[in-house]
Amino acid sequence: MASQIVRVGLLGCGNVGCGVLRILDENRREIEQRAGCGIEVKKAADIDWARPRAYSVPHEKRTEDPWEIVKDPDIEIVVEVIGRTRPALDLVLASFENGKSVVTCNKELMAKEGRRIMEAAAEKGVDICFEGAVGAGIPVIRAVKEGLAGNRMRRIVAILNGTTNYILTQMAREGREFPEALRMAQERRYAEKDPSDDIGGFDPAYKLAILASVSFGSRVALDTVYREGIEAISPVDMGYAAELGYVVKLLAIGADTPEGLELRVHPTLVPSSHPLAHVDDVFNAIYLEGSPIGEIMLFGRGAGAESTSSAVAGDIIDIARNIRHGALGRVPCTCFEEKSPKSMEEVVSKHYIRMLVADRPGVLAKIASIFGNEGVSIASVVQKRRVGELAEIVLITHQVKERPVRRAIERIRDLEDVDTVANWMRLLEE
Amino acid sequence: MASQIVRVGLLGCGNVGCGVLRILDENRREIEQRAGCGIEVKKAADIDWARPRAYSVPHEKRTEDPWEIVKDPDIEIVVEVIGRTRPALDLVLASFENGKSVVTCNKELMAKEGRRIMEAAAEKGVDICFEGAVGAGIPVIRAVKEGLAGNRMRRIVAILNGTTNYILTQMAREGREFPEALRMAQERRYAEKDPSDDIGGFDPAYKLAILASVSFGSRVALDTVYREGIEAISPVDMGYAAELGYVVKLLAIGADTPEGLELRVHPTLVPSSHPLAHVDDVFNAIYLEGSPIGEIMLFGRGAGAESTSSAVAGDIIDIARNIRHGALGRVPCTCFEEKSPKSMEEVVSKHYIRMLVADRPGVLAKIASIFGNEGVSIASVVQKRRVGELAEIVLITHQVKERPVRRAIERIRDLEDVDTVANWMRLLEE
Repeated sequence: MASQIVRVGLLGCGNVGCGVLRILDENRREIEQRAGCGIEVKKAADIDWARPRAYSVPHEKRTEDPWEIVKDPDIEIVVEVIGRTRPALDLVLASFENGKSVVTCNKELMAKEGRRIMEAAAEKGVDICFEGAVGAGIPVIRAVKEGLAGNRMRRIVAILNGTTNYILTQMAREGREFPEALRMAQERRYAEKDPSDDIGGFDPAYKLAILASVSFGSRVALDTVYREGIEAISPVDMGYAAELGYVVKLLAIGADTPEGLELRVHPTLVPSSHPLAHVDDVFNAIYLEGSPIGEIMLFGRGAGAESTSSAVAGDIIDIARNIRHGALGRVPCTCFEEKSPKSMEEVVSKHYIRMLVADRPGVLAKIASIFGNEGVSIASVVQKRRVGELAEIVLITHQVKERPVRRAIERIRDLEDVDTVANWMRLLEE
Repeated sequence: MASQIVRVGLLGCGNVGCGVLRILDENRREIEQRAGCGIEVKKAADIDWARPRAYSVPHEKRTEDPWEIVKDPDIEIVVEVIGRTRPALDLVLASFENGKSVVTCNKELMAKEGRRIMEAAAEKGVDICFEGAVGAGIPVIRAVKEGLAGNRMRRIVAILNGTTNYILTQMAREGREFPEALRMAQERRYAEKDPSDDIGGFDPAYKLAILASVSFGSRVALDTVYREGIEAISPVDMGYAAELGYVVKLLAIGADTPEGLELRVHPTLVPSSHPLAHVDDVFNAIYLEGSPIGEIMLFGRGAGAESTSSAVAGDIIDIARNIRHGALGRVPCTCFEEKSPKSMEEVVSKHYIRMLVADRPGVLAKIASIFGNEGVSIASVVQKRRVGELAEIVLITHQVKERPVRRAIERIRDLEDVDTVANWMRLLEE
């Protein structure tokens, strides 16, 4: 067995890189049988070989120069796990130039430079695989490109960031405030010291841009993804959501509509009966709707070295099978169309609005008339409690376009009787 | 585009066959782009062209003779959607002989004749794909063979039969008795007139045999899968399960253990906090544990023409890509090992036992001493209610091998004070 050996080079040898070394070692026999050839890491590049590692890398495999890997004629597959766009992009493009296929789990790189990367790989007739860039080990990219390839995908609703899902779960379950839940996530190393990529929604926006490109067959420009983070959510909102039969989740939503691609990342009230409502802690889940498949959901650990290295190993095996059969480029880029983005103002949903207002007669009438004038129909208004001198009001709208809701909220903010519009979130329709 | 055309023949043109025709027609443009070639059904074979169909098949594509397709040199992919093992097996083997690749969603065929089929396809260097045989359109076979190929899979816990899951959901949610819930399932055409394949657990046993073969890399003989149906479950058990924090589901469980492959289909008490507890109605879900991926779950419609035809289309596109790249046989059979089955008596779990006993002092002591003598430790016993002259007792054991539980139950059944052991089910550990 394994007369042929495919050699791999690792660009970056931190947690994921070590995870890849471990999996190729521990599951060597199974992987060789499945790939039909041996798979061996020839070289790993890292800038700091002194830092402690979960897996010991033999000295002869170490290098500090990533270009040594990119230039090595023995290496057929380059695994990029450096992160960020530079120098990752240059290394990836040079690898293609040298006839190598590439595996990456770099969501920022694929979201920002996906088009260039896919085109360069196609031009050189090599493979580019990026399963780990979305949902870590959850094989959703391959599912959409292969198993579900007969479908026209209509909608993506997904929890794509484990850190924020952990924070929201802590807030919902234990009633913690956002800063405390964030601190807990940082203590557990779910959140980084600078957590802005996660809590600001940048990370799930990258992932949505990639997944939507693959699902809808049209390259998504990152700046067409609407994005809100979770900083404004309080346990008070979670409590009211629960009373109404909802759970608050940071969702990444994509839809292929006649008015264009709808792409948005924001906190959302999810009905408790929806499968995504039960996805807690650091888990991720991707809920897809397509024709003819109907609804389908993939659930798993969306972060961490183990899960991500599973994705990288799957990609390496896939490419090794292609190398063995002379079939590189077998599953090319599937962005064959140019679909325009849909303006966020055109997006239709129900809305949850919480505000603090003066506790006197006539205030509600003023608010209701502003919504009415803007054509926003109100499904329910409840006065929840008194906060000092103020009354807290929670309002749910019927389905309506975003534009008039924004206008109404601006006008309400200007009312003298209104202290604050404390929060405003969209609801997920079932 | 589509200078090359791959021609397909359908063996069987009922709901799934028509679904395949529809998807290849309605999503033609996307499918051609993704496959990199045109895909065309040249001929469909069915014994009855007079019956009403959801999709109209042009006369020139119809035949009553499946052998016409198997012998047609233009046809490169044969889709077998006849069901049962004969004549399906002969047609599939003859298709290989003639150099054609095959797509099937025939779970009985693959569970009973998988070895012969996989070997014959490998010998001829053609593809055999069977995504639709397990979980219909949920792409779990491809996930295990490809996206998760770097993993060593340890455990499968799955709801693989939509009909019984619908029945159990009706019983749990509405308190219906089994016969009534079955009747409802038949009215909705979820259950067949002769429902024994579903409610007896044969259908999920076929699927488990296939999925376990792929996951654990060892061909599973169907007769090593332990099987119980759902006929004995009553809403009374469901109620007690709910009180204890469980939901009753017909689970297919597979595990690769040091003592051999554990393979079993039976009603199980699933903790309400487990992701499978929320999988209701006709939905299926497959929960997998592997290393390094950890837990992963796939959820979707596990039956129906739409979902199954999505799987068939995915398989056709996969094979068309291989044909285009000269890469047939790219993902071969992955059963490289021979793992022995583990005896059901060695399986360790907690048990739920409900019995009706004489309502007098000392009865419980006798029962408890039998369990004690057999080495079965009891976690809790509750007397639930009086049924006529009898007392109903519900008992939960600690984790224990099956053998002593069986022996204890036999001895308890012989006790004069015991009227019936009304039900006995295993619990799923989290």
